[in-house]
Order: sequence, then structure tokens, then C-alpha cells
Amino acid sequence: MATPNPDRRSERARHAILEAALELCQEHTYGGLTMEGIAKRAGVGKQTIYRWWPSKAAILLEALQGRSSNTLNFPDTGDLRADLRSQMTQVVAAFTDPMFAAYSKGLIAAAQSDPDIANAVVTSIIKPRVDLCIDRLTSAQKDGDIRDDVDLPAMVELLYAPLYYRLLLHTRPVSEDQVDTILDLTIAGCGA
Amino acid sequence: MATPNPDRRSERARHAILEAALELCQEHTYGGLTMEGIAKRAGVGKQTIYRWWPSKAAILLEALQGRSSNTLNFPDTGDLRADLRSQMTQVVAAFTDPMFAAYSKGLIAAAQSDPDIANAVVTSIIKPRVDLCIDRLTSAQKDGDIRDDVDLPAMVELLYAPLYYRLLLHTRPVSEDQVDTILDLTIAGCGA
Repeated sequence: MATPNPDRRSERARHAILEAALELCQEHTYGGLTMEGIAKRAGVGKQTIYRWWPSKAAILLEALQGRSSNTLNFPDTGDLRADLRSQMTQVVAAFTDPMFAAYSKGLIAAAQSDPDIANAVVTSIIKPRVDLCIDRLTSAQKDGDIRDDVDLPAMVELLYAPLYYRLLLHTRPVSEDQVDTILDLTIAGCGA
Repeated sequence: MATPNPDRRSERARHAILEAALELCQEHTYGGLTMEGIAKRAGVGKQTIYRWWPSKAAILLEALQGRSSNTLNFPDTGDLRADLRSQMTQVVAAFTDPMFAAYSKGLIAAAQSDPDIANAVVTSIIKPRVDLCIDRLTSAQKDGDIRDDVDLPAMVELLYAPLYYRLLLHTRPVSEDQVDTILDLTIAGCGA
């Protein structure tokens, strides 16, 4: 009964590693992020990290999935605009969370010259969210809220691309106001 | 009369440096691009490079401006859709030119953790093009082709952000077909 629970110890170590990776990515470039640095910040040995993750990209992916699970919550109340607004506002909150620097400074920057990372970002972060949005738009199209000839994957790009544009090009801050403007123009363009 | 022309020699060296930077950025990450590497590929001394440019980012910016000057040509024939299509098609051609990897793999990736580079990209590449597009949209708004209540900077984002989304997130290839779909939905949403 006095023996420490090894599962709980592992869980604490995993959590410390994920948080350390997020923090270090905020402080450095992806290039400056190392397994050594993560191990040191998390207070674990490098071998402990390699037992669970093959690469720093894999750690960041898991850390971001934990942090952004709320953006996988796509509501369907029957009010298309309200549902899109509510999901897109969660995305804005994630994009403006400093910990989310691990996404833009870390994974997306690295994805530009590493096709494996690009593929992992699409598969584990972007595609699941795009699929949920397409489900919601498909139901709106059936309800007659979106014209039948609208290409739904293109509509998803129109809704979310302007948020990524500001996040990655740093032209203006990503903002909740932006969501309303995007919705005004996109729903006017795609609505029935 | 037999003396080599120093201006012409400088011009050749400058050109060789700009091309070397573009080529190396295609082959490596931005992190892997060095002044030494550029000097070696261009066949010049490192001091020659530092005489003209303070950093590798400055070299890439100038090289890209030379390569993408055609996207600064914003037509105004009176036909809004045709004019947007023609300019956006030039952007697609630039985004799909392998030399343009210096933009996504180089500058935009580096901009995620270097605010000076982010600022230089906005000031020298993005803003001049956005301004020309806003001029064209302003004239379309005066002609009654765009509703008076449409926020023109937001319309610019709706037009170009989906191209950047595919370029930087690697979800699908940037394509000319995409331009037509974007125009269909955006003009339906913003048109008078």
C-alpha cells in the first residue's frame, strides 16, 4: 500500500513532457526545440521520452490535441450561423492562446520543409475538424440553408482560411469580430 | 576599353546570389540556409554578400520580389470577375513554381518565430498586393458591382486566404480550379 503507483507516476511524467514541449515551443523556434531540452524542463530522462514518442513533432501533436479538443465540439442546434459562430469562436480562442504557438511556430512552420509533419498535421488536426464541419454543412444543405450547388469543402476553406491567413501571415490579429464578417459574406455567398 | 565593367560584374554577382538563395531554400529548410552556403553556390565571397544584404531573409525577400513582380499587375478592364481571375491565376502560378518554396519554406516558416521577418513579409510582399486589390474592389464598389456594406479588406482575405490555406497547410494542391470556386462563392456573397 505504501508502493508508489507506477501508472500514476507515468501519467505525471507524460503530462510534464507535453507541457514542457508546449512551453519551450513558445520560447524558441521549432528548430531550437530538442528532446534534451524537453527532458530537462520536464525533469525526466531522455529515454523516458523516447519510450513514448519517436520525435518532437509527435509530442507537439499530442500536446496540441489535448489542448484543442474543445474545437472538435461541432454543435448542431439547427441554427447554421449560430453553430458556425460558436465553433469558429473556439478556434479563435485556440489561435490566440499563447500555448498554441506550438502549432504555428512549431508544427506548421516545420511542415513547410518536412512532408511527414505536414501529413501528420493534416491527418490528426485539420482533417477531423474539416470532416465535422462538412457533416454540419451537409445537414444544412439538406435543410435548404445552403444552395445545392455549393461545394462544401470549398465553403469550409472560405470559413477557416481567413483565420489561418491572419495566424500565419501576421497581417492583423485573429479576432472574434473577424468571425462575424466571414460569416456575413460566406453565408450571403452560399446561403439558399 | 579592355577593363572589365565593375557595374556589370556586380550585377552578375548580385544575380548569382539571389538565384543561389532561391535554389538552396528549395533544397533545405530556412534553418539550413546559411550565408556561407549562398556564397559558395554563387561563387562569391561572404563579404560580398554582406556588402549588399544584412541577412538571409533580406536576400530571399529581394529574390522573391524579382520573381513575383507579375503578381503586382492588377488589371482593371471593367470586368471584375475576369480581373480577379487573371490576378489570382498569376498568384497560383507563383505558388506552384518550385522556386517559390523560398516563400513558404523560407520566409513564412521563419516568420512564425521571427517578428522582424513577419513584418518584412507583410510590408514588402503582402501589403502592396492587398492595396492594389483594394483599389480594384473600390472601383468595383463605385461601379455597383460590390455591395456598399461589404468590408473590402475582409473580401480580400476571402479571395486569397484559401490559396494560402492550401499552400501552408498542404491539405490539397493550390490550383486554378480553386480560383473559379472561390470567385463563384465570394462574388455571390459580396456582389450587388
